[in-house]
Amino acid sequence: MNKKPGGLYYGEYLQLDKVLGAQQLESEKRGAPAHDEMLFIIVHQAYEIWFKQILYEIGSIIEMFNDHVVDDRQMGRMVARLERVHKIQRLLNSQIDVLETMTPLDFLEFRDLLIPASGFQSVQFKELEIALGLKRDMRLPVDREFIYSRLSEADRGKMQVAESKPSLLEVTEKWLERLPFLDFEGFDFWDAYEKSVALMLSKDRKIIEDNPTLPEVVREHQLNELEATRTRFSAILDEKKFEELRSNGEFRFSHSAMLAAIFINLYRDQPMLQLPHRYLTCLVEVDELFTTWRSRHAMMVHRMLGAKIGTGGSSGHDYLNRTAQKNRVFLDLFNLPTFLIPRSDLPTLPENVIDSMRFRFGV
Amino acid sequence: MNKKPGGLYYGEYLQLDKVLGAQQLESEKRGAPAHDEMLFIIVHQAYEIWFKQILYEIGSIIEMFNDHVVDDRQMGRMVARLERVHKIQRLLNSQIDVLETMTPLDFLEFRDLLIPASGFQSVQFKELEIALGLKRDMRLPVDREFIYSRLSEADRGKMQVAESKPSLLEVTEKWLERLPFLDFEGFDFWDAYEKSVALMLSKDRKIIEDNPTLPEVVREHQLNELEATRTRFSAILDEKKFEELRSNGEFRFSHSAMLAAIFINLYRDQPMLQLPHRYLTCLVEVDELFTTWRSRHAMMVHRMLGAKIGTGGSSGHDYLNRTAQKNRVFLDLFNLPTFLIPRSDLPTLPENVIDSMRFRFGV
Amino acid sequence: MNKKPGGLYYGEYLQLDKVLGAQQLESEKRGAPAHDEMLFIIVHQAYEIWFKQILYEIGSIIEMFNDHVVDDRQMGRMVARLERVHKIQRLLNSQIDVLETMTPLDFLEFRDLLIPASGFQSVQFKELEIALGLKRDMRLPVDREFIYSRLSEADRGKMQVAESKPSLLEVTEKWLERLPFLDFEGFDFWDAYEKSVALMLSKDRKIIEDNPTLPEVVREHQLNELEATRTRFSAILDEKKFEELRSNGEFRFSHSAMLAAIFINLYRDQPMLQLPHRYLTCLVEVDELFTTWRSRHAMMVHRMLGAKIGTGGSSGHDYLNRTAQKNRVFLDLFNLPTFLIPRSDLPTLPENVIDSMRFRFGV
Amino acid sequence: MNKKPGGLYYGEYLQLDKVLGAQQLESEKRGAPAHDEMLFIIVHQAYEIWFKQILYEIGSIIEMFNDHVVDDRQMGRMVARLERVHKIQRLLNSQIDVLETMTPLDFLEFRDLLIPASGFQSVQFKELEIALGLKRDMRLPVDREFIYSRLSEADRGKMQVAESKPSLLEVTEKWLERLPFLDFEGFDFWDAYEKSVALMLSKDRKIIEDNPTLPEVVREHQLNELEATRTRFSAILDEKKFEELRSNGEFRFSHSAMLAAIFINLYRDQPMLQLPHRYLTCLVEVDELFTTWRSRHAMMVHRMLGAKIGTGGSSGHDYLNRTAQKNRVFLDLFNLPTFLIPRSDLPTLPENVIDSMRFRFGV
Repeated sequence: MNKKPGGLYYGEYLQLDKVLGAQQLESEKRGAPAHDEMLFIIVHQAYEIWFKQILYEIGSIIEMFNDHVVDDRQMGRMVARLERVHKIQRLLNSQIDVLETMTPLDFLEFRDLLIPASGFQSVQFKELEIALGLKRDMRLPVDREFIYSRLSEADRGKMQVAESKPSLLEVTEKWLERLPFLDFEGFDFWDAYEKSVALMLSKDRKIIEDNPTLPEVVREHQLNELEATRTRFSAILDEKKFEELRSNGEFRFSHSAMLAAIFINLYRDQPMLQLPHRYLTCLVEVDELFTTWRSRHAMMVHRMLGAKIGTGGSSGHDYLNRTAQKNRVFLDLFNLPTFLIPRSDLPTLPENVIDSMRFRFGV
Repeated sequence: MNKKPGGLYYGEYLQLDKVLGAQQLESEKRGAPAHDEMLFIIVHQAYEIWFKQILYEIGSIIEMFNDHVVDDRQMGRMVARLERVHKIQRLLNSQIDVLETMTPLDFLEFRDLLIPASGFQSVQFKELEIALGLKRDMRLPVDREFIYSRLSEADRGKMQVAESKPSLLEVTEKWLERLPFLDFEGFDFWDAYEKSVALMLSKDRKIIEDNPTLPEVVREHQLNELEATRTRFSAILDEKKFEELRSNGEFRFSHSAMLAAIFINLYRDQPMLQLPHRYLTCLVEVDELFTTWRSRHAMMVHRMLGAKIGTGGSSGHDYLNRTAQKNRVFLDLFNLPTFLIPRSDLPTLPENVIDSMRFRFGV
Repeated sequence: MNKKPGGLYYGEYLQLDKVLGAQQLESEKRGAPAHDEMLFIIVHQAYEIWFKQILYEIGSIIEMFNDHVVDDRQMGRMVARLERVHKIQRLLNSQIDVLETMTPLDFLEFRDLLIPASGFQSVQFKELEIALGLKRDMRLPVDREFIYSRLSEADRGKMQVAESKPSLLEVTEKWLERLPFLDFEGFDFWDAYEKSVALMLSKDRKIIEDNPTLPEVVREHQLNELEATRTRFSAILDEKKFEELRSNGEFRFSHSAMLAAIFINLYRDQPMLQLPHRYLTCLVEVDELFTTWRSRHAMMVHRMLGAKIGTGGSSGHDYLNRTAQKNRVFLDLFNLPTFLIPRSDLPTLPENVIDSMRFRFGV
Repeated sequence: MNKKPGGLYYGEYLQLDKVLGAQQLESEKRGAPAHDEMLFIIVHQAYEIWFKQILYEIGSIIEMFNDHVVDDRQMGRMVARLERVHKIQRLLNSQIDVLETMTPLDFLEFRDLLIPASGFQSVQFKELEIALGLKRDMRLPVDREFIYSRLSEADRGKMQVAESKPSLLEVTEKWLERLPFLDFEGFDFWDAYEKSVALMLSKDRKIIEDNPTLPEVVREHQLNELEATRTRFSAILDEKKFEELRSNGEFRFSHSAMLAAIFINLYRDQPMLQLPHRYLTCLVEVDELFTTWRSRHAMMVHRMLGAKIGTGGSSGHDYLNRTAQKNRVFLDLFNLPTFLIPRSDLPTLPENVIDSMRFRFGV
């Protein structure tokens, strides 16, 4: 009678009947089982349960920003959750190693049975891109089209729901804008910064001009690049110019959010800025790891198919490779190193400013 | 009306309704959701779907051995599948990195709700150990007891079914015993090998005796060790001694299987032995990676609980650490390097033997 | 008197006085030590000793091809050495993780002191590219110019010596051309292959035409792609067309080398082709891992400098990113999956052909 | 005349003539070059330059503690440097993958030529153990003996110099003892903690007693374990008992350092404790990664030699395996999870205490 030990049971808690009962090979249904289709199914299911976890973590961070003013203790938790997301993303990248053990000859054995299903139909992955801050009009045209043509009505509905919510990019921007430490009574930080920048750029020009090993054509190219950098700097220091570049898509963050992000990066050693800096770095890393995932995924599709088409009727390799860079969300943070200067050229902050960024203990 | 595009649909093919609908937090049921319980569930579900894949691959290899004589083309496939298993095992090890992002304070928040469920109740993991070749009487007493006390009747039944099937160890042993290349007309390989071994051992003795940096106590210890090695070698060359040591549990493979394994290792460069050698190496790696998984798992439990007890009512750390070495299956292959000698001391095989291990092409 | 124990001594064997005495910080010479310059030096020295090892392995493989006909036993050794190279390349990639622990602010502290030195001046890395098969005229113009303008006379000499030797690409091509298994008396393999290809391509066309989820513009694009694939296939089957494409740079391998490579890929399960297939796959992986290294390196430079210039006076990020794809050597093998067909559509080889690719044993 | 471009030159800056000129094969000297000896030399040189870097980082951290009171900004830097050390340690672990590509047959080809040199003679690795806090009398007898018998006089001198300096363990202990936040006027933290602990332990007892799946023998064992845990807790709360256990070697930290470490772990979310917590966790990770390195190193030696002796005349496998656990330094921190309790059972700190651990900004 006594069928199992009392209380919670491992297999029931994890609902393993559902999870382990969800692998049905199309090739088996047709009477010609292809051994490797099992791997194909399981690797994609593993992707999906991890996507669920990432969505869960990202959602919880967005909520922490939304609910109320961000308290210092929450900042630590946000960073911890983003670092967890990174670890999961590394796992997703390693899963490609597993999928690559399938040879093209074996994949071609069941590829035709899966048509027209396609990884582009992963609703959760699209929700994830949206939750991070990817807007529909930032997508490649083909990527955008697929949302309409490839998804079921129900799934298109989910896209809309996702798009109606605040994204991680948006709540981060608002939080940056609210950061208080850019008003220093009697000290014009940005003026001092501008002088340091000017110094650095003129040094850079000298480096290029004096280098005897630079072919002339390279020198010219570099001087042009330097001018472009100078323009970017002047945009940082001039809101109007900034807005111009922003309307051309060169920046996504607002001017004040961008200034706050730069300040945090420059003074990251101050106790109060250590976690905010870590948080911003974590966002870049999320983008980075998805970029790697898309590129490696593209490479894997290439190994399977070469120039042949995928199950969705288009070249998966090409598509993935193009979205790899295109679908980055935190590009402003990725490009931020442009605006950093040597530690020894950093404007010295007034004592009271430095002080206000320390701990209360002992005051 | 048209709810979704015609044909196979990604989410339906993968049965995502089941897979993504199987995460129910105990803490939520009790009205006090613990954020990290989701991760706990998902990481264990990910383990289980990968266990399913490993069981599927190992099962397919056992079948290839069983069905008929192993043909050379299948050997390549077996190796490929074991290498796939390794990649999955590396993934399992990386999943520990993800679980370790949970802090002890967060785990303690829901640990009590899971009692008495326990990872020891993973039926698939036990099936896996059995499929590899772990016998019930080789398990630690506590490990053995748990099969009876912790599993439901249905799951105990599954254990018995698994135990009634041939294991990878067994089919490998039979295959080794069948290997033909140990009969060389007119050439006594093992005699030549014995001479090489004797030479090597006497060199080793000299190394120990002449080393001026060895403290006396170490020297003595080493000389004793050398004698133990000599004993092991003589067992290899004397079936009766071998069977004695085998009955004491020092070997699991039969004498002829062991000889074949040594021969394959010594002459691995011969075309015909390259894949068999790779196959044997793959088995050691499977053991190795599970040993790593158990040790890292133990370490992770220690990080969560220190000396406190786990959800199953016992110290998971201690248990896992002890099974890590204990539950190795291919120990004979792991210890095989003892029986290798320098390439330049290898007995030269007769030309016709060498020849028979090459490809037919051009004969 | 007795200064050290007799015989070989660890530190002397490894010449640690030289190796550990070769780190002199420029910043220290100038009296303002920058802590992180030590890491910068050591990580680059670690790169260089590993480059030495890779050059040593690649050189030994080229020699094996050159000296005499490749014997089956050597094929195993070549594969083992390439797999060792992969492991070293993975190490090189991981070293970027270490270098990335340096922050931009810390790097800028000593960047100016290093001008105009540059990683482009790594002679060994260029020797490596050349040993693999990169020709000077395949380099980006700027990459080519640097060999003249940035290297010392002595180092330019080394470039020429390296360029005068046979490369891995060349010896591989010659070996492929020599492969015998493309002449089958009375069986026209390529005719059978052509029929299978035609079948597959017409199926692919149907997949594209019938897919209801494809937007019209995508469908058209895909049909064009399919035509391009068909053209590539017809080039494989028609030497004249092949040579045309080859003269446009679409192929580097000769026609017969390419056919051999395709055949090996299609019939990789045959015992005699298993190692050749593994060897070819290893070459693609070498390219792949250097591509990853260059991309990750580029990314790391971007993290340090953003759009600012590097120590060599040019944007390292941009340069590295462009050479990442450009400097691939085994592109023909990378693109080979295009020419694969489902296992079940493979032309059945005559019994005697199959037989000749097995082992002699038992004949 | 102009031999090289003006200014700093890559190869000279890195002193590549020294670094790349330090590989001389013993086997070549004897006229019988063993291909794999090059790898053996280079992998050990790579170890040594990385050891130099780790020593450099650890030394810089010890100095930061010594020079003056630790300021919050330095804590961030210390953590960053330890995280760099981790990355290097991961690299050291990956280098084992490379060394493992050498087969036993190939190693045995030159092993005898290296006698009696041994990896135990790595002065830097011993200096590293000493810098972390390993005392000579904590070493295994054989490990201790080797310092005298195997090292040259000069190198024994280096050991003594290293041992005369403060270790990372010691400066960390002193810093913990100085931590101020254990005096709360009018609030007895440890009294509240004791009550929470008592509650948790009685819950744990109930878990063990009520679990129907526990075999009687396991139950008894667990109850004994629980008593041992209770003893440890009471030692934490009673300085006299603590000192007793400490004199038996159960603790290395002083009582007040231990209390501070526990407090930091319990209240790690407080802004002021986030970095100290991260710092302590980093120390455990350093130990952890060296433990992994020693175990994997032992495993690799086993793969090479089995039960045969190493170049130093003793079983490297055995030695390394035993030092793996024995030479851990921060065992107190490793065992600290024992003393953690569920977040919801944490004593609520008084408002003013909480407040003093926040940032000054806005006060």
